[in-house]
Amino acid sequence: MKNKAKFIVVEGLEGAGKSTAINYIYDLLLELGITNVQHTREPGGTLISEEIRRLFKKEFEGENLTAISEVLLIFSARSQLIESVIRPCLNEGIWILADRHNLSTIAYQGGGRNIPIQEIKSIQRMVCKNLEPDLTIFLDVSPEIGLSRARLRSKLDRIEKEDIKFFNKVRSTYRNEINELNHDVILIDSNKELDIVKQEIKQKLFQWFKNTKG
Amino acid sequence: MKNKAKFIVVEGLEGAGKSTAINYIYDLLLELGITNVQHTREPGGTLISEEIRRLFKKEFEGENLTAISEVLLIFSARSQLIESVIRPCLNEGIWILADRHNLSTIAYQGGGRNIPIQEIKSIQRMVCKNLEPDLTIFLDVSPEIGLSRARLRSKLDRIEKEDIKFFNKVRSTYRNEINELNHDVILIDSNKELDIVKQEIKQKLFQWFKNTKG
Ligand SMILES: Nc1ncnc2c1ncn2[C@@H]1O[C@H](COP(=O)(O)OP(=O)(O)O)[C@@H](O)[C@H]1O
Ligand SMILES: Nc1ncnc2c1ncn2[C@@H]1O[C@H](COP(=O)(O)OP(=O)(O)O)[C@@H](O)[C@H]1O
Ligand SMILES: [Mg+2]
Ligand SMILES: [Mg+2]
Repeated sequence: MKNKAKFIVVEGLEGAGKSTAINYIYDLLLELGITNVQHTREPGGTLISEEIRRLFKKEFEGENLTAISEVLLIFSARSQLIESVIRPCLNEGIWILADRHNLSTIAYQGGGRNIPIQEIKSIQRMVCKNLEPDLTIFLDVSPEIGLSRARLRSKLDRIEKEDIKFFNKVRSTYRNEINELNHDVILIDSNKELDIVKQEIKQKLFQWFKNTKG
Repeated sequence: MKNKAKFIVVEGLEGAGKSTAINYIYDLLLELGITNVQHTREPGGTLISEEIRRLFKKEFEGENLTAISEVLLIFSARSQLIESVIRPCLNEGIWILADRHNLSTIAYQGGGRNIPIQEIKSIQRMVCKNLEPDLTIFLDVSPEIGLSRARLRSKLDRIEKEDIKFFNKVRSTYRNEINELNHDVILIDSNKELDIVKQEIKQKLFQWFKNTKG
């Protein structure tokens, strides 16, 4: 087990600090001697997945993406990412540091869009088969704080324009489902100042690393 | 029931004569006094579905669409078509004349690509819910004859380039699954000359129309 490449996922609402955390975790992994790390984001990361991402983010005159279509497009992009990037990297000993994965679909399309979570999990099994992250780091932020950070950062996309009720449902689904995962979890209170968040990430990641290494 | 708009699907391999049959059936329906008919093709038929169709047909340098991704993209396009076109039309009394629908996915991605048919049917239930065609017309053609017709017609796309073994599996799945449908079916031997095929379509369609009307 000692040298097996690990699959780490960072999850949370918009503005939770996922991108920021991923840069920081990259540095922490270097400190731990892990130099082979591939960063991914979802949806995206392959030629086909990036085309699907564009479709997913775009707004169409007079036509809305149905909730189930959203789920199917996301899993289609995920399948491409898994087979073209995630599995090949892990097989070659390259760690994966992922910005979103299955838990986002359960939180956003399940919690936010009311697609039955059992339906999402059944598609997930078809797409991911035996692939399971080793660790999910969940950055828990209130929608008010997260969205205000996201608003400062850039123009809001199709998803970011949803109302606060939507994001409250997403957050509560995140908080329920994080406990249902079959792998290790690190929970971070991401409402706090960035310095404190980073400190907490460092302490908990190093602890996890020590435990899984030994 | 008498005046309820019907949902008719035409199925078969490339070169089976689906497009030809649809034009002919359109005329036959006119003869029967059905003037409100919307033609659809899959994948496609809405702004979003046509973007998915393009993605589906395209070839990407160094990346293949996974089999499950193919299924998910097709059902994503289908969901858009159902909610934007098929359901609204049927509700307004407009008949649907469809070039391919669920049976194609079972035949091509199930039979051809070895995705378990039960998995396809479970996604189908999520997407189509209670929507079911009233009639499927299956144009049964041997791959040799169908592909030679398709080759004469135009440049082959990503799917049409598959080998004969693939199309033999697709055809045999079509022939098995046509019997599993929960709605009316018309079977046509499409290896025959066009005049004979048309005659058979006319006779069987008129018979079906008489039976379902009464
Ligand atoms: N704990 C924090 N406190 C305050 N601002 C933060 C914190 N974490 C991230 N930010 C800032 O909020 C914005 C969104 O962070 P980002 O990492 O892009 O979030 P995400 O990728 O989850 O949407 C960025 O401008 C970032 O610098
Ligand atoms: N029964 C038939 N015999 C001979 N040629 C046919 C027959 N049916 C169709 N064709 C021709 O074969 C080609 C493919 O038919 P088409 O209707 O486009 O098939 P599909 O839509 O199923 O791919 C067309 O050029 C068409 O004119
Ligand atoms: Mg980000
Ligand atoms: Mg055609």
